[in-house]
This record gives sequence, structure tokens and C-alpha cells, in this order.
Amino acid sequence: MESKSYLVQMNGVGGKAGVPARSLNGKQGVHHVSVNGSLYPAKAKSRRLRWDVKASDMANSTLNPIRAIVDGMKLTPNKDKAMIALSIGDPTVFGNLPTDEAVLQAMRDAVDSHKFNGYAPSVGYLRSRQAVANFYSCPEASLEAEDVILTSGCSQAIELVIGVLCNPGDNILVPCPGFSLYKTLAVSMGIKVKLYNLLPEKSWEVDLQHMESLIDERTSCLIVTNPSNPCGSVFSRDHVQKILKVASKHCVPILADEIYSDMVFPGCSCPSIASLSSDVPILSCGGLAKRWLVPGWRMGWILIHDRNDVLGSEIRQGLVKLSQRILGACTIVQGALENILNNTPQSFYSKTISFLKSNSEICFGELSTVPGLNPVMPSGAMYLMVGIDMDHFPGFKNDVDFTEQLVTEQSVFCLPASAFEYPNFFRIVVTVPEEMMVEACARIREFCQRHYRPRSCDSSDLEQ
Amino acid sequence: MESKSYLVQMNGVGGKAGVPARSLNGKQGVHHVSVNGSLYPAKAKSRRLRWDVKASDMANSTLNPIRAIVDGMKLTPNKDKAMIALSIGDPTVFGNLPTDEAVLQAMRDAVDSHKFNGYAPSVGYLRSRQAVANFYSCPEASLEAEDVILTSGCSQAIELVIGVLCNPGDNILVPCPGFSLYKTLAVSMGIKVKLYNLLPEKSWEVDLQHMESLIDERTSCLIVTNPSNPCGSVFSRDHVQKILKVASKHCVPILADEIYSDMVFPGCSCPSIASLSSDVPILSCGGLAKRWLVPGWRMGWILIHDRNDVLGSEIRQGLVKLSQRILGACTIVQGALENILNNTPQSFYSKTISFLKSNSEICFGELSTVPGLNPVMPSGAMYLMVGIDMDHFPGFKNDVDFTEQLVTEQSVFCLPASAFEYPNFFRIVVTVPEEMMVEACARIREFCQRHYRPRSCDSSDLEQ
Ligand SMILES: Cc1ncc(COP(=O)(O)O)c(C=O)c1O
Ligand SMILES: Cc1ncc(COP(=O)(O)O)c(C=O)c1O
Repeated sequence: MESKSYLVQMNGVGGKAGVPARSLNGKQGVHHVSVNGSLYPAKAKSRRLRWDVKASDMANSTLNPIRAIVDGMKLTPNKDKAMIALSIGDPTVFGNLPTDEAVLQAMRDAVDSHKFNGYAPSVGYLRSRQAVANFYSCPEASLEAEDVILTSGCSQAIELVIGVLCNPGDNILVPCPGFSLYKTLAVSMGIKVKLYNLLPEKSWEVDLQHMESLIDERTSCLIVTNPSNPCGSVFSRDHVQKILKVASKHCVPILADEIYSDMVFPGCSCPSIASLSSDVPILSCGGLAKRWLVPGWRMGWILIHDRNDVLGSEIRQGLVKLSQRILGACTIVQGALENILNNTPQSFYSKTISFLKSNSEICFGELSTVPGLNPVMPSGAMYLMVGIDMDHFPGFKNDVDFTEQLVTEQSVFCLPASAFEYPNFFRIVVTVPEEMMVEACARIREFCQRHYRPRSCDSSDLEQ
Repeated sequence: MESKSYLVQMNGVGGKAGVPARSLNGKQGVHHVSVNGSLYPAKAKSRRLRWDVKASDMANSTLNPIRAIVDGMKLTPNKDKAMIALSIGDPTVFGNLPTDEAVLQAMRDAVDSHKFNGYAPSVGYLRSRQAVANFYSCPEASLEAEDVILTSGCSQAIELVIGVLCNPGDNILVPCPGFSLYKTLAVSMGIKVKLYNLLPEKSWEVDLQHMESLIDERTSCLIVTNPSNPCGSVFSRDHVQKILKVASKHCVPILADEIYSDMVFPGCSCPSIASLSSDVPILSCGGLAKRWLVPGWRMGWILIHDRNDVLGSEIRQGLVKLSQRILGACTIVQGALENILNNTPQSFYSKTISFLKSNSEICFGELSTVPGLNPVMPSGAMYLMVGIDMDHFPGFKNDVDFTEQLVTEQSVFCLPASAFEYPNFFRIVVTVPEEMMVEACARIREFCQRHYRPRSCDSSDLEQ
């Protein structure tokens, strides 16, 4: 229903005009003149007398921690060494990981068909939704077209899910370290963020007790990122079941960020969270960005898994309504989607994964023998986290300082994990060409060797 | 700066855990267990005991009046007559208005270049922004690349502009009749909407006194749609100057929705609002949707015109921050943009406009001789509004009832202007093929002739 209180309708006859003829703050009197037979106040109340245009609270509270940290860093590379950026979560920047020809052909066909230039339904073409449903449906978690909502990238999928589940004052549980967008979106909507810990010593499994301890009456969503950015970790089936148990016990729905789904190294399996849930409603967010290596195309989706009809029509309707605000993904990409999903050869996916695994092994192998660094071997996605034993690097205040100096001396840039609320680590993106990875690791080694100090009573005293 | 109050960081040592060990509502006691050396409450406070997932207030308050009205209508066409929909604001649906070959070629080239698959900056590629700046820059209102922000459709442009200018509790001025998205977006953000009247008898010029009367201290944005959806009207230079004068006097920035810019009939000129402003900051929203006939591609933009630096860096920065939430337009379309703007032949634009003008003239000519109807001849865009003299149609309660019955009897669907907050009118989309337009008008005539009743004392008594 429409909220009449938001509407001052003056489209009518005199006397009905909705503007009360009172003077605000006694600033200016108001008198009426008859215009076209209607009475309107002739002067505005409390007229603004000079320009004073301020950005809204929402804009000001839309904080991007990566930008905040990176923009604050003094990044002046060593002129004598070519810059190597291990910081960019875009697998396409170095050209070594092109998308598949079948993906491009699907786009050309969509353009040539002349069929995909008009408006699509705000949740996407039915046929494209069906294609996504078919692609991800499995016996344990079946999907129909109506369970799929196409969005402008996985980012919009996340925005819609948080937007439909949470009111201002609610809180959401977010992994730490974790992808920063969750907090950026939530905070700008007045939603509180509670960070639950991932445990590096357990390959970044969730600290379940910690997570559970954070849940309260106003917890409206649990976000689980699997595989993980920034950790590259992949949860075991058993661990996912434990997470589901907590969500089930406390009746908290899950936003499963599965944008890296199926990007797991051979030997490791990664069932979708929904396929293991018997009662917890799962809103799974995904897209073409990572697995198909076309992040710029802004094609994402929400898969609605709601076995026991807990979400009911209200949440589905809510998602539809929110999708109508700006409409979703580009219709050319939507039109290409069915062919992209059906025609991309298996070999393309496995080639990407082998490359990521091999690069991860190189990086892990190198850095695990560097004194003072503690890399954690990933099992998927495109990232590797490295712990910095700050005690051994008394010359640096923190991870930001450390990575800044790494640029200055070695022209290697890694994202300080403070950007993921996780100080004293840095993240390496493993999509760079192999020779760059090798060179970068050698430089990191040189850097650490130069700055490493064996722990002594003295130095730990100094830290106090 | 980051608002710490939104963050419960528990990434550390025991004792720092941010969860107070109090029991809420006395429901459940809380005791602590030691886990990994940290103290966490072992049970959640006030645990939810059953599933109860509700859609957020924002989702519930995202109202689409067109859907609300159309979904409430009983639309059962006459089986003996083929349906003619004059309701759909998508110029591509009937296939008679294809986009230009140069536009499609630009897309193929963008796909083939392999250059536009990665993430673009959230505000768009610099080069694409430059292309838009060049295309719209004029001596009276010059534009640089940095004044352009690319968005996912004009809809997202509007969302970002309202989002950056307005706080909850502020109000915006919106034309009536007008495009419904402004209200949909504003209301969902807690922003009040005040409708200012357009005057059909003055070719839908703004009722300036009325508009001015609505301005108060919390008016943070004046929306001007020119050319207009749903009216098809185009303001004269003189009239735009009068609107600017009001905005200037009260120091209210303007969101100029110029998605139909340059879609004006020959003989009529339509300078951009910014080109006539000497002091009022203008955030002009546009896109490829209408003029290039590719609404599904979701390519829009904001042009920032701020001659006197009233907006300063805060608003620009705010727009950048908001653009980082979900990123903007598909990179393939961004990559094609420069060629689209530079290579589309003038003849394509003029062909579209001639067609729209000719169809408008057919429609206006036909309906202006139908008793009880008052069509208003448009000067641009793709719409024509028709007043219904309800006094002469006592059989119908209102415009919704009238248009519903028109479907039942004649299988012609026009959007009741209640969807634009403007009862007793309906809107005709003039992009349909000519023969459909002719046939539809004939059927509307038949319908009106059947239901028209000359006004008599009796019938007007009955209305009381
Ligand atoms: C965990 C995670 N979720 C979502 C996204 C956003 O995906 P998209 O580019 O499709 O919006 C990213 C991008 O890096 C990510 O790492
Ligand atoms: C006046 C007006 N503004 C904005 C839009 C939205 O444009 P887009 O499809 O690019 O989001 C429309 C679409 O009909 C419109 O009529």
C-alpha cells in the first residue's frame, strides 16, 4: 500500500493544497495569492538564502575500506624495479587468463540476434533464469527459473539480499577476514555488522562458538563466503554442516556468497551450502565474474533455496520489488547467458583451476620458507593470505606500513589485510602470470630478509 | 571516517569481546566458556525459537505504482480482436524501431577487442566518460570526462543523484504527471515527495507558483523531466529559464532527467537545462535507452554541471562512493560507447523522430475529433497524454475503469495516468507501428462513441 504521508498531492482544486500556511521559525510570513483558481502560499517558508548542498548521510557512510586504506598509503615504487601488483582482484588485468571463446561467441550471437535490446523483466529473462536454474540445480537443492533473480553483478545480488532481509538497527554476521562490500553496504543502510572470526590455524574455518555468541534477536542474516575472498579457503562438508546447525538453531537465514563456487583445487570438493541445508533458507549469490573471467560484464544472480517455505512470498516479492529500482543486468549478457553456461567447455574451467593451484603452490612454497611470514595454503578462489610475524619486523608499525614499504623498496604491492579487518596479514592475488609470481616472491623474500630481526627480550620490550 | 558503533570487532584476545553478558528480557541466562583462550557467551541472548523471516521496511516501501495499478486491473481482451498494447514504454517491442547497425557493430567490436572484460573503474572507463563529455559538451555548459559518471541505466543515475543529495526527512519536488521511479526510489529511502503540477492547457508547462510554494528548508532537489514522460512535452527556452529562476532563488539543485534529450520534433528546440543555467547546479541524467533504442543495455550517465562549484568535492566524492556499491554499467557497452556516440549516423536519429512525430500526429488527429477525449499534442519523447472528460462517461468510475473496459471491449491497452498520479488521463506510447496506431485509434473512437453521454443537468446531478 502507498504511504500517503510521503505524498503531498496538490493536483486539484483550491483549498485542498497540502501546504499548511504557517510560518516556520517565524522567519517569513506567508500570504496567499490566487493562481489558476488555487490558493498557494506566495512565498516559501524558511527560504534557503545561499547555496549549501551537502552529501547525504548515506553517501558519507558508504565506506570502502580498501579505498580508504589504499588511498592513504604512500605508494612510490622503486624506479629500478618494474611494479608488480598482487593486489588487484581482477583476473583479467594481465591478459594471461582470457575468457573462453565460447563465452565471446555467445555475446556476438546475442548482439546479432537483435532480440536482446529491449527491457527485460526486472528479475531477468525467464529463459536466462531457467538456464541458471538448470546449471545449478542438483537433487539435494533443486532450482526452478522462479528461484533465480538476475542482477547487475554479484554485488547487486548481495545488495538486494541484505536489503530485503535487514532493517536499520538489525545486525548481520560477517566473516573476518572477509570481503569488504558486506560492511560497506550494511553500514550505509544503518545495519550493524558483527564480525565472526575465521581461524587461520584451521585453514580459515569459522570459529563456531564465536559466531554463535554474536547472534541475538536482531541478527537478520548470516553471511558465509565459500570459497573465500580473501582467504582462498574452502570449507569441508562437515564444517558447512556445523555452520548450518548454528543458523538452524537460531533461525537465522544465510546469505551464501558463492561467487567462487566450483573454483576449487582438484581433490577438494565444495558442495553448495544449500545442498547441505535441510531447513535453513539460503540465498546464494553468484555470477559470471570469476569463473568465466568477465567481471566487467556485471552479470550476477540470486539463487533462492527455501526448502520449507520459510521465506514465503514476502521475501520473494521483496526481492522483485527491489529489483525494479534500477533493473538488473545488461540484456545482451542475459541473452548470451544460456549459451555461456551450456557451451563453455569443461577444459576451460579446469585450465583456470590448474593455473590458480600451480601459482598458489609456487607462492606458498616460496613464502613458507621466508622467515617471519606465515602463508596459508588456499584450496580455491584466487587468493592467498600471508601472516606477518610483526614481532620480527620491529621496523614496521603494522601490515599497512609493511606493504607500503614493500612497494617503496621492491615495487611489489600486496593488499594489507587491514582492508579486510584483519591486521598483520596481507593478501596475494594468484592470478598474475607465473613469472611475475616467481619474481614477486623473490622480492618479498629479499625484503623480509632485510628487515627480519630475531626476537629478543629487548625487541619485545620495545613493543610494550 | 568509519563509524565504530557499527562494528563489533572480536578479532582478538579474550576479555575484549564486544558482547555484553547481559540477558535480554530475562529470557535466557548467559554463561561463558573458554574457547581458544577467549571468553564468549555460550548461548545467544534472546535466541529466536522459530523461523520468522520478514521483508525489510525498505523492500516493503519500494512501491511501483504502475505495477500496483496494472496488477490490480482485470485485463481480459476481446477474443475477436487482436490485442494492441499502447502501454509499453519500450520502443523495441514491435520490431519496427531497430537500433542502428553502427550501434551493433560497436558492440561486436568491443567483444572482439578482448579489452573490455575486466572491472572498469566504478564510475566508468575514463575514455568512455570522455566520449560522453565530448558528445554533450557545449560552449554554454562545457563538460570534461571527470564531470561524467557512467551508471547502470538512467535509473541508477537517478538513484545515485537522489541518494547523494537527500537525507531521510528531506523532500524532493517531482513533476505531476511524472515518471513514477522518482517516487519509488525516494519513498523507499524515507525521502518525502512533493508533486508540482504541470498544466495540460499550457502544453504541460510547470505551474511555477505551485512549484515554488512547495519549496521549504528541507527541499533538497528539484526534478525536472524534459522532454517529459508521460507528457511528450518539451519546455521552451523561456520556460526553462523561469524554472531555473525559482531554483536559483531558493538555492535548490536540479536533477534534470534528460533521457529523452534531442528526441524533439523538427521545428522545436530543446536546449539542455544546464546550458541555460548560470548558477544552479544541474545533475543531468541520461543514457542510451531511448535515443539509441537499446533500453535493455542498461547504459546511463550523470553529467555534473556545477559552474560555480556549489557542489564542491563532497557531492562528487559522494557520487563516486555510491557508485562503488554495485559498480556501474556493463564493460562491453562501455567499451562500445565511444563508437556508438561517434558513429551513429544523423539519419538514424532523424528517422526515429520523424516516425514519432508522424505517429503522434495520426494519434492526435484521430483522437481530437473523438467526443469526450482531449489529447494533448506532444513535441518530443514517445508519449501522448489524453484527457478523459469523465462527465461524459458516467459509466466509468475513473481512468483505471475506463482503460480496463477499453481492453475488455476493444483489446486496446493504454496506461491509466493514475500511474503517474494524474487521474482522468491515459498515456499512449507512440512507438507502435503506424497501422497499429491507426487501428487502435479507430477502436478507441468506437469505444468512446459507445459510452459517450452528452452532459445534462440530470447526469451532472448524478455526479454529486
Ligand atoms: C566474495 C566476493 N563476493 C562478491 C564479489 C563481487 O562480484 P561482482 O563483481 O560480480 O559484483 C567479489 C568480487 O571480488 C567477491 O570477492
Ligand atoms: C523519464 C524517464 N527517466 C528515466 C527512465 C529510465 O531509463 P533507463 O531505462 O535508462 O533506466 C525512463 C524510462 O522509461 C524515463 O521515462
